Amino acid sequence: MAILGATSFALGLKAPYYAVVFSSQRRQGDQGYAAMGDRMVELAAQQPGYLGVESVRGADGFGITVSYWDSEQAIAKWKAHAEHQEAQRKGWSDWYAHFELRVAKVERAYAMQAV
Amino acid sequence: MAILGATSFALGLKAPYYAVVFSSQRRQGDQGYAAMGDRMVELAAQQPGYLGVESVRGADGFGITVSYWDSEQAIAKWKAHAEHQEAQRKGWSDWYAHFELRVAKVERAYAMQAV
Repeated sequence: MAILGATSFALGLKAPYYAVVFSSQRRQGDQGYAAMGDRMVELAAQQPGYLGVESVRGADGFGITVSYWDSEQAIAKWKAHAEHQEAQRKGWSDWYAHFELRVAKVERAYAMQAV
Repeated sequence: MAILGATSFALGLKAPYYAVVFSSQRRQGDQGYAAMGDRMVELAAQQPGYLGVESVRGADGFGITVSYWDSEQAIAKWKAHAEHQEAQRKGWSDWYAHFELRVAKVERAYAMQAV
């Protein structure tokens, strides 16, 4: 198990803000998922109100992605983005066997980093 | 990539409820982590107000665990549990290079499961 830098973390956020917790079980096969996933990460980061993302998927295909936003309005606009809508359709039809999506208001946070 | 059942998901929750989003980067070596992790999952599930947990860690040692609770009071009690306090100390000293912990109120949720 390697020790990585902190690039996987969403840093510097000041509560309150919003988190979208997306837990998902992939189906078998890529079916365009990897390319679209990269594009969605790139596109999300360009949206107003985007604060960051943390994401991990295990070898069994279960994953959790948490994206952070400054308002519910920003989340709603991202959900309605045309290219993201197309990805959502593919998610339902091709990529996921099951997902749970939760929109939550982060009220407090703390952190530890070894130095 | 295997298709698993829905056992990885926290199911049947009714908003509003609370989520503790714990994102972490492991250090190298087990140092008692696996056994303590199993014990914490078992112990958390016995606490009043516990609703469920979702957890995944990648091969690079970055992981996200989201635990769900019915109130902030339940989260505070779990944080203060003596055996959990000992695990938290080990987390700081031995297991994690970096973590971010966020307490959030889940305001709405939706889900999809292929049938």
